Amino acid sequence: MNTIKYLLDEDKMPTHWYNVAADLPTPAAPALHPGTGQPLGPADLAPLFPMALIMQEVSTERSIEIPDEVQQIYRQWRPSPLFRARRLEKALDTPAKIYYKYEGVSPAGSHKPNTAIAQAYYNKIEGTKRLVTETGAGQWGSSLAFAGALFGLEVEIYMVKVSYNQKPYRRALMEVYGARVVASPSTETACGRAILAEHPDSTGSLGIAISEAVEMAVQRDDTKYALGSVLNHVMLHQTVIGEEAIAQMEMAGDYPDVIVGCTGGGSNFAGLTFPFIGAKLRGERDVRVIAVEPAACPTLTKGKFTYDFGDTAHLTPLVKMHTLGSTFVPSGIHAGGLRYHGMGPLVSHLLDLGTIDAVAVQQLETFSAGLQFARTEGILPAPESNHAVAATIREALRCKEEGKSETILFNLSGHGHFDLQAYMDFQAGTLKDFEYSDEEVAMALAGLPSVG
Amino acid sequence: MNTIKYLLDEDKMPTHWYNVAADLPTPAAPALHPGTGQPLGPADLAPLFPMALIMQEVSTERSIEIPDEVQQIYRQWRPSPLFRARRLEKALDTPAKIYYKYEGVSPAGSHKPNTAIAQAYYNKIEGTKRLVTETGAGQWGSSLAFAGALFGLEVEIYMVKVSYNQKPYRRALMEVYGARVVASPSTETACGRAILAEHPDSTGSLGIAISEAVEMAVQRDDTKYALGSVLNHVMLHQTVIGEEAIAQMEMAGDYPDVIVGCTGGGSNFAGLTFPFIGAKLRGERDVRVIAVEPAACPTLTKGKFTYDFGDTAHLTPLVKMHTLGSTFVPSGIHAGGLRYHGMGPLVSHLLDLGTIDAVAVQQLETFSAGLQFARTEGILPAPESNHAVAATIREALRCKEEGKSETILFNLSGHGHFDLQAYMDFQAGTLKDFEYSDEEVAMALAGLPSVG
Repeated sequence: MNTIKYLLDEDKMPTHWYNVAADLPTPAAPALHPGTGQPLGPADLAPLFPMALIMQEVSTERSIEIPDEVQQIYRQWRPSPLFRARRLEKALDTPAKIYYKYEGVSPAGSHKPNTAIAQAYYNKIEGTKRLVTETGAGQWGSSLAFAGALFGLEVEIYMVKVSYNQKPYRRALMEVYGARVVASPSTETACGRAILAEHPDSTGSLGIAISEAVEMAVQRDDTKYALGSVLNHVMLHQTVIGEEAIAQMEMAGDYPDVIVGCTGGGSNFAGLTFPFIGAKLRGERDVRVIAVEPAACPTLTKGKFTYDFGDTAHLTPLVKMHTLGSTFVPSGIHAGGLRYHGMGPLVSHLLDLGTIDAVAVQQLETFSAGLQFARTEGILPAPESNHAVAATIREALRCKEEGKSETILFNLSGHGHFDLQAYMDFQAGTLKDFEYSDEEVAMALAGLPSVG
Repeated sequence: MNTIKYLLDEDKMPTHWYNVAADLPTPAAPALHPGTGQPLGPADLAPLFPMALIMQEVSTERSIEIPDEVQQIYRQWRPSPLFRARRLEKALDTPAKIYYKYEGVSPAGSHKPNTAIAQAYYNKIEGTKRLVTETGAGQWGSSLAFAGALFGLEVEIYMVKVSYNQKPYRRALMEVYGARVVASPSTETACGRAILAEHPDSTGSLGIAISEAVEMAVQRDDTKYALGSVLNHVMLHQTVIGEEAIAQMEMAGDYPDVIVGCTGGGSNFAGLTFPFIGAKLRGERDVRVIAVEPAACPTLTKGKFTYDFGDTAHLTPLVKMHTLGSTFVPSGIHAGGLRYHGMGPLVSHLLDLGTIDAVAVQQLETFSAGLQFARTEGILPAPESNHAVAATIREALRCKEEGKSETILFNLSGHGHFDLQAYMDFQAGTLKDFEYSDEEVAMALAGLPSVG
């Protein structure tokens, strides 16, 4: 009873990304201009993104071709493997069949290069010289640094100060790839200086780092901004995961009853699930889809579905999403990639439509799940991915109770080789659970803008 | 001009390991009993290893079947990819063609699981309950811990104290897999206590850690010892790398003129090169083979080819190998996996026969090479693997000078995601080169035993 690998032939690798906007029963609400409150036009976004990405952001075409150059680079690690976790199934003594798509095989160790490569490519061909971005735990920053190295683009990364200090190895990886990494809040931007003037000891947040990166990007014509999640074009680029998974499930002669992904901004979740959700929306094949978030940042389960800013300084457009408010500071859980006050608008819209479900899990349950996964399947998951593992184990145990042999598929979005401090803390018993009370959430939501 | 991947179909995965002993023009010298100085019989090794591994240690059969269970587990990450490094070629502006076999795709991030899985399997079927081993940098320890988790074996690891303190994350990975990790020298063994009595502040060495592990293993019938390099059966298990590479080079329509591997105990080097060396020894196909070692531990280039102990306390058999003496303490370079006073007897024998070449490189050159590799090929190499990258770049630049389009193949034995401190030190300019003078080497060699 060993793990089985399903590896797609390279010539069956997807040539197009899948755009879920084409199959939505009602369109997602448009992004609004932060100044006027009016729907954004492409020109409004031009200071931030190359036109090809802006067009993808608003496209309703079902299939968008993956440029040949991007496909070539993808092929260094794609198609990524799909595994049947028979050793985990055995340990759980479940009649469920558990499959996982493994994105940790990329050079950066996560799914993030799927969009980093695409974004670097479109920027390169439109003449961008420098990309500015933010990063929390560092998975996105290291992926964009990697992509920048391949395309000869300068990369500048505003890294949340607490992570900058606590995760020097993530920073080191970005610097190995040649990126410049700045602790945020910094004195390099007006909004960074304003925050430091008021809070000299600020350890930063993703919302602040986004403000700094956006401010830098709009200042120079040769500089653009890049975002690693939330936006529609990011979700689009990640769908290569789910498209491969559909073909691999076919190889296995199976189809998921349940699909599970962890959600911070939503990109790895969207990447795996959107192609399956497309089939569901088109009425071809039903599936239950579960978004898993940390109880310490309960955007989908306790947030409000409304217009909000993506950043602290309110420089970004207003997008309609599940949000805890742009001033919300999630507690310091180790799954840094899931600590964001908002959510991708497409994921939020699908939750609002009832197409997907959402569940919040506690930190200790996720690490316990990760440890069991490592000891059975051998792969050490990233703390973010542990959320998907935990929900998958819940589902597998439900199947055991109900005596059902359902098929569960989840996204193992990255490996945990950079996150061993978190596992050390867990094994030493110093990790804690954290959950916000309804009162605390209500207080955070009180600061939401009254737009839209 | 992007990296090209050659991925072998799973049904073409090797079903047998290749044993170079079958093709040697003269046999390697036998191991000797440390007490009597007489050649060892299988019974002498029985307290340390299961009989199946002892038989592999002395076998001269050319092909040894890989057990089905081991093949199944290999298939989780094997066949590993072979890449053509076209982006690196372009950066070097070389007419050479550079290929690399990438072993960092295993769950532990290096080639070590190839033998860890096999050793755990044979121990399991012969009734072993507990495996004891040593580890330096931690690649081997984490691989055996992973294998132990899959087979339900207890694993106890004596980790060189300086690494235990400096590399807590490597230790954490072993503990995640359920292993018990002990800082060596420890008070748990007689030889550990003896060393601590004399040198209370000893930071340990691989030689000491081996002594402790061997001492523990022989004390209990249900406990065996496991070694991650040096021995013939370890080299054997690693040949799956080279066998796959032969098939993959065929897919690429190419054959190496030069093969490069880094050498500590010799196992990743042997794994890639032995199947090619077999063809060379049988007169089928010529190839130049280069073993690359650190100037800070110049076993092959400055050591003596003679009988020596594998450990400090002289508990192991005497093996004929290139050695700097079992009391030699290599300087603290970051490539911990290459810091061993001796060398696998088969690798030493092949150097003595003139079948392979050896070269020593300095630490700064290896990290400079690793950085260039990461920025072109995207994969961050382990510090050990950087030695192979450095020698490959030397060869590629020689080809450029000579205007020759040679084909170079090297083994990228592991990823460097656990080794970012080393890269940080390199980029901060605090890393140093280190080379032993002939006088220092002569002094170390003066302590060699007068046997054999």
